[in-house]
Amino acid sequence: MSVTASFIGEAQKFCMALIVQKYGGTSVGNTDRIKNVAARVAKYHAQGDKIVVVVSAMSGVTDGLIKLAKDIAPLPSEREMDMLLATGEQQTIALTAIALHTIGIPAVSMTGAQAGIVTDGVHTKAKIHNITPQQVHTALDAGNVVIVAGFQGETAAGQITTLGRGGSDLTAIALAAALKADLCQIYTDVDGVYTTDPRIVPNAKKLSEISYDEMLELASLGAKVMQSRSVEFAKKFGVVFEVRSSLNDNPGTIVKEETKSMEGVVVRGVALDKNQAKVTLVGVPDKPGVAAKIFKALGDATVNVDMIIQNISHGTGTPATDISFTADKPDLLKAQKVIEGLKKEVGYREVITAEKIGKLSIVGVGMKSHTGVAGKLFETLANEGVNIDMISTSEIKISVVIDLAKGEQAVKAVHAAFIG
Amino acid sequence: MSVTASFIGEAQKFCMALIVQKYGGTSVGNTDRIKNVAARVAKYHAQGDKIVVVVSAMSGVTDGLIKLAKDIAPLPSEREMDMLLATGEQQTIALTAIALHTIGIPAVSMTGAQAGIVTDGVHTKAKIHNITPQQVHTALDAGNVVIVAGFQGETAAGQITTLGRGGSDLTAIALAAALKADLCQIYTDVDGVYTTDPRIVPNAKKLSEISYDEMLELASLGAKVMQSRSVEFAKKFGVVFEVRSSLNDNPGTIVKEETKSMEGVVVRGVALDKNQAKVTLVGVPDKPGVAAKIFKALGDATVNVDMIIQNISHGTGTPATDISFTADKPDLLKAQKVIEGLKKEVGYREVITAEKIGKLSIVGVGMKSHTGVAGKLFETLANEGVNIDMISTSEIKISVVIDLAKGEQAVKAVHAAFIG
Repeated sequence: MSVTASFIGEAQKFCMALIVQKYGGTSVGNTDRIKNVAARVAKYHAQGDKIVVVVSAMSGVTDGLIKLAKDIAPLPSEREMDMLLATGEQQTIALTAIALHTIGIPAVSMTGAQAGIVTDGVHTKAKIHNITPQQVHTALDAGNVVIVAGFQGETAAGQITTLGRGGSDLTAIALAAALKADLCQIYTDVDGVYTTDPRIVPNAKKLSEISYDEMLELASLGAKVMQSRSVEFAKKFGVVFEVRSSLNDNPGTIVKEETKSMEGVVVRGVALDKNQAKVTLVGVPDKPGVAAKIFKALGDATVNVDMIIQNISHGTGTPATDISFTADKPDLLKAQKVIEGLKKEVGYREVITAEKIGKLSIVGVGMKSHTGVAGKLFETLANEGVNIDMISTSEIKISVVIDLAKGEQAVKAVHAAFIG
Repeated sequence: MSVTASFIGEAQKFCMALIVQKYGGTSVGNTDRIKNVAARVAKYHAQGDKIVVVVSAMSGVTDGLIKLAKDIAPLPSEREMDMLLATGEQQTIALTAIALHTIGIPAVSMTGAQAGIVTDGVHTKAKIHNITPQQVHTALDAGNVVIVAGFQGETAAGQITTLGRGGSDLTAIALAAALKADLCQIYTDVDGVYTTDPRIVPNAKKLSEISYDEMLELASLGAKVMQSRSVEFAKKFGVVFEVRSSLNDNPGTIVKEETKSMEGVVVRGVALDKNQAKVTLVGVPDKPGVAAKIFKALGDATVNVDMIIQNISHGTGTPATDISFTADKPDLLKAQKVIEGLKKEVGYREVITAEKIGKLSIVGVGMKSHTGVAGKLFETLANEGVNIDMISTSEIKISVVIDLAKGEQAVKAVHAAFIG
């Protein structure tokens, strides 16, 4: 071997990266799309990168399986649902490997278990305990692209588990951490994370980067690019990842630890969550332990409560107060039942519910070091004639509950005021 | 506890059997049928039996998956096809367990791997090496019905494999052997094994029992109740099994070792195989090694050759002979290509093929001790004006190749002559 050839060999070795790519259900929704995924993987493979591909079930497959199970039982066993649903991803990995073979790329598929993803035994929402990816390493070292089934794992005792909603993102990020990947790409049907919903504000901008904390706030605020726990996991293990589109070659949004430069931007994004409902208990006796009773009972019933406000009491006589909270709209009936069950124990006067509300939020790590943000938000809304019903704040977020009918108008105005 | 109660308890323990039941794709073809399977299992469970249920993929599921793979590649990787197709049975086991739960029966599903089915690494047609069914025993002992995915296993290195056509029957029989089951029931969409196809001969009789060898001959002769290798496996390990219908409660056909009483019946069944084609090489030089060359080449091309006849040579001049063989009709093109490739090497004069043939066979262990069976068969056919093209015999079988158009007429006459 000549010196030059040897040098080039070294250089290539140096440039070679280990990349984890995740493709969601839409990106692998039919055989043509699976071929597209293979073509994209091929481009990275041609650069000499080692590639691990995490895929979801083809869109529609999981719903079809759930329908079959519900045809048999309204509340099927969670262990058996995991056994059933894990097949969806297993089908995609095989098909993706086959698609890579047809374009001449060596590839091998692995179930979550085969990839070494060990979880606890909480079926349908298992947590990853650890990852022992020896088989993945061996297959990569042999020159293969490795296709791993997202959303699933196995307990130490060999039971098949699934990770719950957004589980494939979690698989990708956890694998990227375990494999010490150079890059983790989450391919989806949007180009990245935007300053707001481009369907509402046409000049919404795609963000080139965002901090884990901002992404977390946005994820929990109706900008449903990713589930919070995947972002939390990435933050915990310092996995830098990119959210990008599987439909084009545009660069996406890098999600990473907060940097100094990020603080220069006060508001990173504006989100509108139309999926909340509001419940107000009017005339709650103002004595210790009442709020605890109410929210413990809601928690026990797995009602996902978001904002909680305790207002000043109306009227005179016995000291009483109003307590309002918001919850996911599909949980409203469940919440009402819980509250009705507490009527005697808590002794409130009446319950008022509102479904036609929207929660508008502004998010940005820059808020930590900037003042006057809340004032500017409220002023902007006032100028639009938008009434504020509830307010909730965190270090990097301000949320307000407003009339749903004015939601989009408010987003436009707030986006214009803070972002442009 | 009273003495009586204790005695009944003992008696129940004594009567308790371990039963392996296998349900094919039609029997679990939709959620209603899966519920029917659960109801049938419940009846046995109520008797205190321990039950292992082996299921196939829901009918249509495997074909759908194959279609997806073929959309991507005409010849998909066999390892990946196993990964893909194993999901079909995995779905059925979960749904069957769910169906049992809804009627109050504890049940747990297991993949082939979880049930301890260890195979070699020959993907798409793996052989079972051994079965280590600890998990099955543990689950049975805990009072569960155990639902095992048919058709699949795992190599010692953890690769998912499938057992090829008829694999679920094999799973059931191998599990019955490994678990030392008291009974193995193969549920299908027919009532059992008949003396001939009831669609041809309406008064065909269901056999109450049949020997492994007879079943093997029938299985390979177009009476497609079961694949040969499942019957061979049962014979090797002495697994007595019953073929019966999942649509009614009629007793089926018991398949077991030959008994003295079986020999009293000369012809157990009459089969017609319409799926054969005939190839004749005319004018093959009559020298040693020629037949070996031809059939070695056909074997290498995986052409499944059945009957072989070498006729007396026609004509004069150089000693030459005609060689005829039959093969599965779908293999005919492949066989023709192989033969054409041998033209120079073998030096035959021409090739004649015939697709419109039928192979009629009579099978019975009683033939061993009865004479004149062949003569009676040929006479019966002659009386019907059916010309015999080829003849092949074994200890318990006589097969003749005849004109396909006269196949059903011949079956009727032969059935009437030997069985009634």
